[in-house]
Amino acid sequence: MTTLPYGSALIIGAGPGISGSLTRRLRAENIPVVIAARNIDKLANLVDETGAIALPVDASDASAMHTLFAQTESRIGAPEIVVYNASGRVRGPIAELDAAQVEQAVAVSALGAFYAVQQAARRMVPKGKGAILLTGATAGVKGFALSAPFAMGKFALRGLAQSAARELAPKGIHVAHFVIDGSVRSDQRADPADAPDSTLDPDAIAQTYVDVLRQHRSAWAWEIELRPWVEKF
Amino acid sequence: MTTLPYGSALIIGAGPGISGSLTRRLRAENIPVVIAARNIDKLANLVDETGAIALPVDASDASAMHTLFAQTESRIGAPEIVVYNASGRVRGPIAELDAAQVEQAVAVSALGAFYAVQQAARRMVPKGKGAILLTGATAGVKGFALSAPFAMGKFALRGLAQSAARELAPKGIHVAHFVIDGSVRSDQRADPADAPDSTLDPDAIAQTYVDVLRQHRSAWAWEIELRPWVEKF
Amino acid sequence: MTTLPYGSALIIGAGPGISGSLTRRLRAENIPVVIAARNIDKLANLVDETGAIALPVDASDASAMHTLFAQTESRIGAPEIVVYNASGRVRGPIAELDAAQVEQAVAVSALGAFYAVQQAARRMVPKGKGAILLTGATAGVKGFALSAPFAMGKFALRGLAQSAARELAPKGIHVAHFVIDGSVRSDQRADPADAPDSTLDPDAIAQTYVDVLRQHRSAWAWEIELRPWVEKF
Amino acid sequence: MTTLPYGSALIIGAGPGISGSLTRRLRAENIPVVIAARNIDKLANLVDETGAIALPVDASDASAMHTLFAQTESRIGAPEIVVYNASGRVRGPIAELDAAQVEQAVAVSALGAFYAVQQAARRMVPKGKGAILLTGATAGVKGFALSAPFAMGKFALRGLAQSAARELAPKGIHVAHFVIDGSVRSDQRADPADAPDSTLDPDAIAQTYVDVLRQHRSAWAWEIELRPWVEKF
Repeated sequence: MTTLPYGSALIIGAGPGISGSLTRRLRAENIPVVIAARNIDKLANLVDETGAIALPVDASDASAMHTLFAQTESRIGAPEIVVYNASGRVRGPIAELDAAQVEQAVAVSALGAFYAVQQAARRMVPKGKGAILLTGATAGVKGFALSAPFAMGKFALRGLAQSAARELAPKGIHVAHFVIDGSVRSDQRADPADAPDSTLDPDAIAQTYVDVLRQHRSAWAWEIELRPWVEKF
Repeated sequence: MTTLPYGSALIIGAGPGISGSLTRRLRAENIPVVIAARNIDKLANLVDETGAIALPVDASDASAMHTLFAQTESRIGAPEIVVYNASGRVRGPIAELDAAQVEQAVAVSALGAFYAVQQAARRMVPKGKGAILLTGATAGVKGFALSAPFAMGKFALRGLAQSAARELAPKGIHVAHFVIDGSVRSDQRADPADAPDSTLDPDAIAQTYVDVLRQHRSAWAWEIELRPWVEKF
Repeated sequence: MTTLPYGSALIIGAGPGISGSLTRRLRAENIPVVIAARNIDKLANLVDETGAIALPVDASDASAMHTLFAQTESRIGAPEIVVYNASGRVRGPIAELDAAQVEQAVAVSALGAFYAVQQAARRMVPKGKGAILLTGATAGVKGFALSAPFAMGKFALRGLAQSAARELAPKGIHVAHFVIDGSVRSDQRADPADAPDSTLDPDAIAQTYVDVLRQHRSAWAWEIELRPWVEKF
Repeated sequence: MTTLPYGSALIIGAGPGISGSLTRRLRAENIPVVIAARNIDKLANLVDETGAIALPVDASDASAMHTLFAQTESRIGAPEIVVYNASGRVRGPIAELDAAQVEQAVAVSALGAFYAVQQAARRMVPKGKGAILLTGATAGVKGFALSAPFAMGKFALRGLAQSAARELAPKGIHVAHFVIDGSVRSDQRADPADAPDSTLDPDAIAQTYVDVLRQHRSAWAWEIELRPWVEKF
């Protein structure tokens, strides 16, 4: 039985990192989970391991997001937890960036989050219950040189998170924004031996997401910064 | 003769308010000015009064922005001052907003600013000189309820401004972001008699823009908040 | 047995609210706890209920803080968890405030926190282990009218928290700052019947403090905002 | 004749840098200026050059501040412009700092500013007119390691500035906070030949202060960040 006050979850922009860890945690509580990504082939192992359902989605497409929520609803019911982890990134001097790539980066990081929050709100507001977790980055509070598109997308995501929290919290929906400050550990990116835990362990991030999902509505977190102990900031 | 260190200006998203006042100030210094808007009919009086050149642009369209800068260049030379005033706004509960309108709002407020900064950078970086002024709003630092698209656009604009300043300032280009906190005075929106100066006088805003244009590079402002004396914040 | 990675705790500025709830949680994990306040008479019930040790301290006095840590060390060992909850507040128009009261307010909110962090650092740095939790308020990120001394104290506390995190995190010490946005529920301040959970339940706050104490060092929170679901912000 | 809307000025914490430049600018407008510092011997040249009046003050002492304003009033009338430039700084690991030095640093950076704002408010509120300019630093928005006392003082100053602006602006008093991000140029600290204008020219800073003093109340700046074009941020 679950110790969480929510009965179903949809994780968008899922990959092996934060989404993988969170899927395992939610499945361990017997919560049905849909994981959605543009390419679900890479989710096959996670599906096998956890019994989560993988569905394809182009998060930057409003109608695809609509379809994803409808499919999710028919498979596990309207999701009471919605997590948005997708982001788009293109780097380079402003003068040299390709406009279409910039548009796509902002669409994936921010517009897709809006579509997801909208679909979530339509289902959660009538029930007066739900949680929406948005995965941000340092780039959402500090715009770095040579990374304007990522700054635009993550700043926009934070603005959405704030506006959504002000609108939806009084309707019983918990909106939380996470500022992930640092690299997330992966098979491709191990910590150097002399700097253990210098990258964010996705299991540790997922633990804080679960902690937030368990919070009582009298003391909800809106924004939480997470970084490794040795990270400069 | 001008007292400003710049010789030509392009103001995008021009209307009768801030842009009108700024155009008058720059023209009074004999600086050639192009004013661009989607609908330039409304700029006819300003053109007559100041001798500015009006050019049409859909700021949310990258190729239209490219054309605007090329046309500007052929008319007054590459602009050494670029001001971006366009913004898109749609209000309502998140569940009820129209996705296409949200996309358009973000495109006008933020993507259009990116296209403008990119075109500006391509012309200013080789010369090591120029000023880019971006008109933000309180919505860029605080996401209000029922106004998610405006929050997304103005947060994204601020992220762009910060990233652009970090990249371009060391190349001699002054990037400044203004947080306009309050309503701008207009013929349609006069101050109540018992609250004089309770809306922002566009001439007063333009004065600060000109002050910033005159700043010495050893002490450039990046961000300035402006609000009426009686505005709550 | 404790599920926390720390073996002893000192809570400064303890009262019946957040400190009371946190004391109960830590004692339930069998962690020895010292609770310190200017007037420990009001802590008698908490001592009886939990077996915590109450010690008197004037948090605004550096030498009293020194004594408190020495006494704590002799009673339960050097504290591995240090929580600073004290704050000073005086309200009124700036022109009418009493200078001595302002000084005292800043001393309790901020200087006392510095003394505590200093004493904690001296004991934790050599061991490369410890947690310092600082209880802030909305006043630490927004300076309200008629409340300048509280703004000064809580802004200063936040500055201390940030500086301390940058210095001490790479030495293995977890520094976290909480932005408590709203009134904390108390016997004197019950929620109205039509607005349940409109004040922060101290047990709910304490739960998040415990969650933070359990965080893995690869993903430490530095700052967390907590507010009731219906709180305006 | 002055082009500024104010008729007298008091600059506290005056030295040869920002205060010197600002004194020259105000004196050039024929505004009577009192410059106050703990040690006024170092102000002798500035007095000779500008005709400003130098008065001694220990800014960290409330009664000395009271006396300074009374003396200023008798010499040049109640100051309509008050500038607070004093700050205290002590660096080092938190564990090693001297408590008395920390207290003094916070007292000079923040409590002294409060005393000055209080004295100013008492004189300006009845007239419904005046300007209070507070010189902050990057340390007021970012707490650096090994510099906790400066962070505490400058964060507190910013909190005071915000609270004071919210209270006093609607009474006609312009409160502005400057985030000076970088080193101020001095005889002791010249720019390297390959990095011209890499330190803040105090004349350039003073220019922006004067610009702010000239702002119309319909569009007052509350906070302005200033940094050299090549400064990292």
